[in-house]
Amino acid sequence: MPNLLITNCDIITLDSQGTILRNANIAIEGNTILAVGDRPPDFHPDEIIDGYNHVALPGFFNAHCHSPMTFERGWAEDLPFPRWLNEKIWVAESALTPDDVYWGAALAACEMIRTGTVAFNDHYFYMDRVAEVVEQGGMKAMLTWCVFGIGDEKEVGANLDGTLAFIERWQGKADGRIRLSLGPHSPYVCPPEFLARVAKIAAERKLPIHLHVAESKEQIDNSISAYGKTPVAHLESLGVFDAPCVAAHCLLVTDDDLDLLARRGVSVAHTPITYMKLAMGVNDLSRFLRRGINVAIGADGPGSNADMDMPAQIRQTAILQKHEWRNPEAFPGDTALRMATQNGAKAMGFARSGVIAPGFAADLTLFDFDKPHLYPRHNLVAHLVHSAKGSDVSHVIADGRLLYRNGELLTLDEEKILREAERHAFRMVGTEMRSMREYKG
Amino acid sequence: MPNLLITNCDIITLDSQGTILRNANIAIEGNTILAVGDRPPDFHPDEIIDGYNHVALPGFFNAHCHSPMTFERGWAEDLPFPRWLNEKIWVAESALTPDDVYWGAALAACEMIRTGTVAFNDHYFYMDRVAEVVEQGGMKAMLTWCVFGIGDEKEVGANLDGTLAFIERWQGKADGRIRLSLGPHSPYVCPPEFLARVAKIAAERKLPIHLHVAESKEQIDNSISAYGKTPVAHLESLGVFDAPCVAAHCLLVTDDDLDLLARRGVSVAHTPITYMKLAMGVNDLSRFLRRGINVAIGADGPGSNADMDMPAQIRQTAILQKHEWRNPEAFPGDTALRMATQNGAKAMGFARSGVIAPGFAADLTLFDFDKPHLYPRHNLVAHLVHSAKGSDVSHVIADGRLLYRNGELLTLDEEKILREAERHAFRMVGTEMRSMREYKG
Repeated sequence: MPNLLITNCDIITLDSQGTILRNANIAIEGNTILAVGDRPPDFHPDEIIDGYNHVALPGFFNAHCHSPMTFERGWAEDLPFPRWLNEKIWVAESALTPDDVYWGAALAACEMIRTGTVAFNDHYFYMDRVAEVVEQGGMKAMLTWCVFGIGDEKEVGANLDGTLAFIERWQGKADGRIRLSLGPHSPYVCPPEFLARVAKIAAERKLPIHLHVAESKEQIDNSISAYGKTPVAHLESLGVFDAPCVAAHCLLVTDDDLDLLARRGVSVAHTPITYMKLAMGVNDLSRFLRRGINVAIGADGPGSNADMDMPAQIRQTAILQKHEWRNPEAFPGDTALRMATQNGAKAMGFARSGVIAPGFAADLTLFDFDKPHLYPRHNLVAHLVHSAKGSDVSHVIADGRLLYRNGELLTLDEEKILREAERHAFRMVGTEMRSMREYKG
Repeated sequence: MPNLLITNCDIITLDSQGTILRNANIAIEGNTILAVGDRPPDFHPDEIIDGYNHVALPGFFNAHCHSPMTFERGWAEDLPFPRWLNEKIWVAESALTPDDVYWGAALAACEMIRTGTVAFNDHYFYMDRVAEVVEQGGMKAMLTWCVFGIGDEKEVGANLDGTLAFIERWQGKADGRIRLSLGPHSPYVCPPEFLARVAKIAAERKLPIHLHVAESKEQIDNSISAYGKTPVAHLESLGVFDAPCVAAHCLLVTDDDLDLLARRGVSVAHTPITYMKLAMGVNDLSRFLRRGINVAIGADGPGSNADMDMPAQIRQTAILQKHEWRNPEAFPGDTALRMATQNGAKAMGFARSGVIAPGFAADLTLFDFDKPHLYPRHNLVAHLVHSAKGSDVSHVIADGRLLYRNGELLTLDEEKILREAERHAFRMVGTEMRSMREYKG
């Protein structure tokens, strides 16, 4: 791995003191940050990145997504959740092939890298194909093969045993950039005995669990009526939280649920644009943060939220909390930035990432601040939360490797991916393939 | 004015049928669209723009903003509205000079043009300097010199008579790209007799009026207690709506207010990101649209919303309405696109703009759709509302003139503007000037 030196940039370190360095250097040796501030005198970089007019931030960890669902972007619009799912998403996915998963995830990877994301927590099917994208693209990921625990699971490519074999195939691969977890879909789909079995295997094999929790009032009511417990309490009773756990959404939770999530160290993934677009409501994140719950931010699937752009999710997280709870002082300063970086890294089990400091993983993003919407530079943190866009990202470094530089993806064949992803997406939903020159109408 | 031809693009015309053309041409003669579809056989363009993989949309009309307030971007964060205004915004503006206004507006113009905006409806002070920016930059604008009607107005540079002189200076200038209106700040600041005087002058001189209306419960309560009327009814009683009127915000309005706004043809400007960031609440726009009220979208001031990016406001308008009223079917299809284009043009009195069709003004924007987040292209309209970013804009044409092409502003000296805007902004708030290389910390 070549050594990298970034010179003369401003650095939002996101360390515990919120240190911001001006006109500073970052020296990267292998996959680790060696020094921040002055350039070490005996450091010999293979590549120097001029950070003038740039701001460095820890790279984004997208803490909950379904990356191959890029193929459904724009495919299911303006519909209520049940119709969105039943009439569009599941119909399209009924024709899903492993190749679709590969190209959909590759498309998502192009978009994620371009917008500053170094790692993603993916929950989908045929996950070997997503692992290939991670291996080739140079990102980090926690990968979860979703299982329902009902039927023969043929339609999703593998039952629980099959997903365990997937985990064995990829454990420790891609230079440790891939982590693996078990993926029971949710307490509202999976039978209790199945969840208990997953929990037992997770505990035995020290595997994390990534699932969906408490997305609607109907789910809560059904859980209480079937089990006499909220979804969170139900999962606890089955031992699910004995494993490190990422619970996506948790939109409707009681104070007791929150105390439980805090006590058990469960990470929560928040995906605000999906909540708004599908009109699912939103949770009061201050109730989570007050208890010390690790809340991270995810992009969810582009079939619901329309993009994989973490800067868009960060801005949305901050302004939606201010709006929903009518409190302009909510989510101040770098709160949402920390959620999108170090909290995500923690949720996904990547230790020592999400801070720009010596000894931390070299997972970071440079923003080009020489743009009209980032002037005047009164407040770099506020600009990153509220004004910076994914398109302001100029460089992305994951695990010490430069993945993106000024418009160019260095690890992925973007032109081929765009073409193949569209071809596979159109095949899946039955649209005749067309180029922009040959649209049928 | 050179004739332009755009070839082989997809066109979201926003005509009354919602026609979308594929692989079509747009011929522009002078400041007017001559033909759409096939290239006219006898048309001789001076410049040809290759529209392959691009989508054309009518240019955005930013229907309510305070463009010079770019100088306060990031300057007043995470504060409740009264503290935001009293401790930060008005303190900074107490040092305002005409030069600050020029450079602040020029910075905003760079950002607006880059993100597809062809026209803006500006409400601020020292407006001659904004008019200069419009004249130089090639945009269209309706310009409003804000007056309070109390004191000698020295701090805002002119009283009502002074603003009338401004209107006379600029009426019909810049090839008709500048329109002018009267700008009493609001019914909560301006005394009734002053508003009545403004209304009388507007009627006599056939001038529009642009003001702020009904932003908070306190304003409503005070209006009812002082005048026995809601702000909308109060304005009607003073004759304000006898003039064509843009009422920004209208966050808290009764059914009677809405009926009145509809009957009097008042346009309403909606600025969702300000509402969220300052936690002001949001109105139910379906109540407005149901009555046929012309609702347009504005960016407001970057001291409150952080950018001048209409695509960001469009996405926010759509998802915030879905979210707030828990209705995923709200604001379907191109609703928000129409608000941000033709409704804005109507509000600002620019006739025959906001549709891509022969005979309409050549005000349009091309989006480069060859980007990962715009694949697969299932639905061009949904992509423009939910996935496209300001940074996807590749070309902007206003009044038949190309203002922006693939990263380059053709009418404004962007490098100088960024530097001068920052210098003036720092002076205003007392920050020592610094370059990114020389930050003091």
